[in-house]
Amino acid sequence: MKFNEKLRRSVENKSTFLCIGLDPDVGKFSSHFSKNVRGVFDFVKTVINLTVDLVPVYKFNLAFFEVWGGRGWDVLEKLREMIPLETIVIADGKRGDIGNSARFYAKTLLENLDFDAVTLSPYLGRDSIGPFVENEGKGAFVLCVTSNESAMEVQNYGGGEPLYIKVAETVKELNVRENLGLVVGATKPEQLGLLRRKFPELPFLIPGVGAQGGSIKVAVDVCKKGASGIINVSRAILYPETGNIEDIRKKAIYYKNLLKVEKL
Amino acid sequence: MKFNEKLRRSVENKSTFLCIGLDPDVGKFSSHFSKNVRGVFDFVKTVINLTVDLVPVYKFNLAFFEVWGGRGWDVLEKLREMIPLETIVIADGKRGDIGNSARFYAKTLLENLDFDAVTLSPYLGRDSIGPFVENEGKGAFVLCVTSNESAMEVQNYGGGEPLYIKVAETVKELNVRENLGLVVGATKPEQLGLLRRKFPELPFLIPGVGAQGGSIKVAVDVCKKGASGIINVSRAILYPETGNIEDIRKKAIYYKNLLKVEKL
Repeated sequence: MKFNEKLRRSVENKSTFLCIGLDPDVGKFSSHFSKNVRGVFDFVKTVINLTVDLVPVYKFNLAFFEVWGGRGWDVLEKLREMIPLETIVIADGKRGDIGNSARFYAKTLLENLDFDAVTLSPYLGRDSIGPFVENEGKGAFVLCVTSNESAMEVQNYGGGEPLYIKVAETVKELNVRENLGLVVGATKPEQLGLLRRKFPELPFLIPGVGAQGGSIKVAVDVCKKGASGIINVSRAILYPETGNIEDIRKKAIYYKNLLKVEKL
Repeated sequence: MKFNEKLRRSVENKSTFLCIGLDPDVGKFSSHFSKNVRGVFDFVKTVINLTVDLVPVYKFNLAFFEVWGGRGWDVLEKLREMIPLETIVIADGKRGDIGNSARFYAKTLLENLDFDAVTLSPYLGRDSIGPFVENEGKGAFVLCVTSNESAMEVQNYGGGEPLYIKVAETVKELNVRENLGLVVGATKPEQLGLLRRKFPELPFLIPGVGAQGGSIKVAVDVCKKGASGIINVSRAILYPETGNIEDIRKKAIYYKNLLKVEKL
């Protein structure tokens, strides 16, 4: 099955656009977990066990595993294997390279670790995207408009049409196997709406709600139209203020309902 | 010492702009090395032993280590430790992320693995560069004009001034601790010359000579001016056609002389 279709079905089956972002930061752990690579494993395993029936998608943020070196990479591999087949798993590493390097990154993440999709950076042009989307069952979300403060200094560049529109057009061209989407931050509601209108065929991965304060209303509205989408929440679910493990599930249910799919 | 000064001294001490790119691709190994992660370790160790007296800089391409998972990461760590203090080591991972993710990538590469510098992608703006250049002794080379075919579709974007000039201007602004440089491909001699004239204070990391066929003359000319630079050669040194290990050193000497620093 083509990746974008798999994503749409997964979202419909769980009736929510919620994607849980797995960013295990030991500095934010409650006292239940040790602040080392073993604690990272226990923490993420706990989060998965508490939420796996609720959500269609998990996104692993590679930065938080790589920081533990080879052992962190092993933990990433073990945790990924715990997630059932019907749940989509995204490797969020924002890779962007060319030639053999791009092919090796694709092999690592999509074959060896068997992630369903990756996030990619578009600065090197289409050469850096091609190797990740040769298999229609595997997908890629390309950075388009990001949720951070300095995003627009590059992404909005250009005399007429801004760069992010050009990037989205390139992604649309490369989407011949229907396995590409865009990363568009909820902190940029204007661009989010514009991109949905111009690119109804592309699914969006939307960060920036939850702790970053982006517009949930606009994000959900955009996901209900066109090729659907997923809305990432990390910190606001992983680290409940109470420090109680059970509240991770409560927070996930809260966001699941806030981001629910209503059949039209 | 500030990173850019350390780089300049290292280049002068070895009298060459040559940077050897460590891209261990088992598919290209001669029969002396096994085509597994142990072979990767043996191969890179051999290359380092054969060339460490010759060159000022090595660049590790992370894609070729990550593909071996946790063990690949361990091998990267061990190999990095073999390189003496006076030789600069760059982690070429083209990372580009924000907030805590960027901070974790910086901690991984510049602290835990103690690389001297990294390569970065600028699509997310200055938020994705800041965390890597807080320590003046550690540096970052930001992708500006890359050596691949589709590079210009994004990098040349803009009605008036192209995006790559805007990126270079941002890097110049962030270079307050004199620890930033640009990645500029030798396959784009026109842009290389223009960038050197406009940004004499930034060192360049120049890929694209050797197997990719970029202009050696222009690359050397640019490095002789302004804040110096380094010229990366990977395949053309690592995989001599003869398959003889000793020819790795011969090839390195050939490129060392081709890219030699002539005192003005």
